[in-house]
Amino acid sequence: MRIETLDTTLRDGAQAEGVVFSIEDKLKIIRALDELGVDYIEAGNPCANPKDEKLFDYAREHLRLKTAKLAAFGMTCRAGVPAEEDAQLQRLAHFGASVVSLVGKACAFQVREVLRASLEENLRMVSQSIAFLASHGLAVFFDAEHFFDGYAKEPAYAMEVLAAAQRAGASRLVLCDTNGGTLPSQIESAVRAVAERFGSVVAIHAHNDSGLATACSLFGVRGGAVQVQGTINGYGERCGNANLCAVLPNLALKMGHEVLAGEGLARISRTARFVSEIANIQMNEKSPYVGRSAFAHKGGMHIDGVLKNPHTFEHVPPERVGNHRRYLISEQAGRGALMLKLAQIAPDVARESEDAARIMAMLKSLEAEGYSFEDADASLELRILGALNRRREFFRVLDFHVISQKPEDSANAQAYVKVAVGSQVEITADEGDGPVNALDRALRKALLRFYPLLSGARLVDFKVRVVASHGTASVVRVFIESTDGQRAWSTVGVSSNVIEASFIALSDSIEYLLMLESK
Amino acid sequence: MRIETLDTTLRDGAQAEGVVFSIEDKLKIIRALDELGVDYIEAGNPCANPKDEKLFDYAREHLRLKTAKLAAFGMTCRAGVPAEEDAQLQRLAHFGASVVSLVGKACAFQVREVLRASLEENLRMVSQSIAFLASHGLAVFFDAEHFFDGYAKEPAYAMEVLAAAQRAGASRLVLCDTNGGTLPSQIESAVRAVAERFGSVVAIHAHNDSGLATACSLFGVRGGAVQVQGTINGYGERCGNANLCAVLPNLALKMGHEVLAGEGLARISRTARFVSEIANIQMNEKSPYVGRSAFAHKGGMHIDGVLKNPHTFEHVPPERVGNHRRYLISEQAGRGALMLKLAQIAPDVARESEDAARIMAMLKSLEAEGYSFEDADASLELRILGALNRRREFFRVLDFHVISQKPEDSANAQAYVKVAVGSQVEITADEGDGPVNALDRALRKALLRFYPLLSGARLVDFKVRVVASHGTASVVRVFIESTDGQRAWSTVGVSSNVIEASFIALSDSIEYLLMLESK
Repeated sequence: MRIETLDTTLRDGAQAEGVVFSIEDKLKIIRALDELGVDYIEAGNPCANPKDEKLFDYAREHLRLKTAKLAAFGMTCRAGVPAEEDAQLQRLAHFGASVVSLVGKACAFQVREVLRASLEENLRMVSQSIAFLASHGLAVFFDAEHFFDGYAKEPAYAMEVLAAAQRAGASRLVLCDTNGGTLPSQIESAVRAVAERFGSVVAIHAHNDSGLATACSLFGVRGGAVQVQGTINGYGERCGNANLCAVLPNLALKMGHEVLAGEGLARISRTARFVSEIANIQMNEKSPYVGRSAFAHKGGMHIDGVLKNPHTFEHVPPERVGNHRRYLISEQAGRGALMLKLAQIAPDVARESEDAARIMAMLKSLEAEGYSFEDADASLELRILGALNRRREFFRVLDFHVISQKPEDSANAQAYVKVAVGSQVEITADEGDGPVNALDRALRKALLRFYPLLSGARLVDFKVRVVASHGTASVVRVFIESTDGQRAWSTVGVSSNVIEASFIALSDSIEYLLMLESK
Repeated sequence: MRIETLDTTLRDGAQAEGVVFSIEDKLKIIRALDELGVDYIEAGNPCANPKDEKLFDYAREHLRLKTAKLAAFGMTCRAGVPAEEDAQLQRLAHFGASVVSLVGKACAFQVREVLRASLEENLRMVSQSIAFLASHGLAVFFDAEHFFDGYAKEPAYAMEVLAAAQRAGASRLVLCDTNGGTLPSQIESAVRAVAERFGSVVAIHAHNDSGLATACSLFGVRGGAVQVQGTINGYGERCGNANLCAVLPNLALKMGHEVLAGEGLARISRTARFVSEIANIQMNEKSPYVGRSAFAHKGGMHIDGVLKNPHTFEHVPPERVGNHRRYLISEQAGRGALMLKLAQIAPDVARESEDAARIMAMLKSLEAEGYSFEDADASLELRILGALNRRREFFRVLDFHVISQKPEDSANAQAYVKVAVGSQVEITADEGDGPVNALDRALRKALLRFYPLLSGARLVDFKVRVVASHGTASVVRVFIESTDGQRAWSTVGVSSNVIEASFIALSDSIEYLLMLESK
């Protein structure tokens, strides 16, 4: 069966701690979601938020989407106010969006405790508000807030609210597990009861406070929901909303439903990364289906199994969700894993060759120093190419000095670098917030003259860990993750000098991008 | 019903990308898990990994646990080799652990494709290996690898393997969803079939590749599992294992089961954080139940609701899992904990005093900067004394400069410091292996003239972690542990400049020793 998708990354997802979207951010995400093939994009609350108002104004005039429809979010009229006199509803009605997500209370406890209105008055608010919007030609999705809590305690009233909403003209009854506390089996039976009474009009809107939002969405569909609601990467308040990047692949690949338009599912990994970029939230690489680790194999036995048959250690083929398989090179992995890596970057090197033996020996000695390449594919590739004398020299760092002093402000460190590109030498300097930042800035500045494309790349993560503890002379390992907006790669450096370790990882990061671009 | 917990953070969790535990790390985690009250701790693979061998040797001699039993992990004998001649099994049998998790294949497809043995030979391997260990008095938990995939395709064989395992003496049949691809409803019905045939002996071991590991664990218990297996924070290969920090609260608070010993559940938030510290993996603050955001309320309506009645926007009371409610506009913090600390160092400060309020405010603002004092008592004490104007000035650092260059040898950094002790000023310099080491040496050298006892103190641990990621300008937190041979104390510094952060922790460390000695 086809299941509709409503994405609320831009509305409920924007409630997450640390997430702020500009209008431009929202437009970029709307286009990406349309490419992905979602049916509805809940883009904001135009009557409560001036930025969202501008967004909808712009969208009405200029935005032409292929598949998705924009939905505006709003609330029922207030207690004691007739719907047609409610300023917010009036604006919503004349706003030009064709779909409205209208939230109202569906739980008697909430009506009494929070709204402090009578149960009858709440029914009036829900019913009149929907009828008012529907009479203006809008499709109304009724967000039944706290539905599952209400259904558990006072089911008759929860159902009465839904009945009022449907009678008034709501085309979707959105059952919300607002506090995220309901178990999947409870979700399924409640959704089934609603679908049996009201028909194929149910949407499921789950939150992750119990770590069950993905399961609750699937069980909602089992119960008869025809629409799933969630966000990219599960962004949302507290523990987040249902993560569409897990829900949609499960529906399609595990439960045989049709989701998204066209070949959308194969775009979901890149959509996840793109939205994390725009939201400026580090991608969780362990995310099901779409994370870099999702199809990463470590340990000789697993790699051996995958080589014999990928089904042995993969629940779905990674390409179905636009992801790819990775083999992690580690002490546990051995030569089999190395050969897989070599197959990608130097397929002519034979398993029993001297080259392969030399590379194995190099990797072992680097691991003994404290290196770990399993999370640093780019550095690994550069080291292997180096051992084969195939590493192209894009630049040489002839010297650097970094000075750091007792800080007075954020420019508390300076770096001087001297680099050579071919026969040309560039000497420059920059300041920064800390010595590593100063060195990073100076190095990029020196190379930008030769490689303007470096301006499009940036670091997204920087990690330091002590690998061998000798007080302040401890050996540290620095991981750096970089992106140019489309691709992500990671590099590693090890030294007892944290600046040197950072320098190695920084320099690898720049070199790797130059190598990718020169291919 | 009581459900057993087997924690495999130290075995399956250590398969996660980027996780490496030292023996000391493992011992710390074992003690924390015992405090938490888990039943079994799968601590490693002593026959395959020399580090784990040492760990088990040490544990046998020195470790006395309150509740938990250590389990060693191992594999069935190889194809064609009788169990009693298998070197690994022989060592396992004589290792002194009382419980063994023994992994074998329970899926005909895997036997054919990966093992490349006959189905009969696999039965022999499982059966003989278990019988061999059981005959040496060990409790054997049989890890039925790929059980659910096997049960889906060739159920008769999967059941036959379990029957052989039980006949041979396995006391737990651990049903593994090794690839993490099975849906919760499939888990439930398979577990039920096994429990009906073999009794109350089933354990559920789920992986998170579909984002469903928590749900699968709960549905396993619904089907009749008496043991859940998982890891703290869900660490594990690819997308991780079932996260015990979500599974256990759900079992106890939503499904009415008894889990953990004593009041363990109320320790689970701190255990999650402690393990993330040891693993040096940034805590996911959006984690269900245990993350800082799990009970964080944003926006007036939600806060208003929670103030009227916490049930309105909280699925469980946060204190049940040792977490606490946060209001994102005005943070509520634990004055109780502060008063305990004050009782030790400034017992005259009353709970409702202005001083107590000022200290609370200071700690909150430091925490917002990225400080964490849980592991840095000495710094905490100094800060509190400072806020009370009781911090004695042993020295002042007037200035420092640190220079680091492209390293040629281990003296690749130099530091200059200028300190004042009373009215006397000392200027000196030193070199070191990295900028932090150089600064450490120079600072001690400058102060030694005034405080000769500093020669007896040294740093024993130095840790760096990124607390807020902004590329190379990320905010880092540096922990330092020091000793004078008799006492140990720890200090912390935070800055976007790693040298400044180290300096703060270093300087606190020296000051703290001077304060102890002057008492």
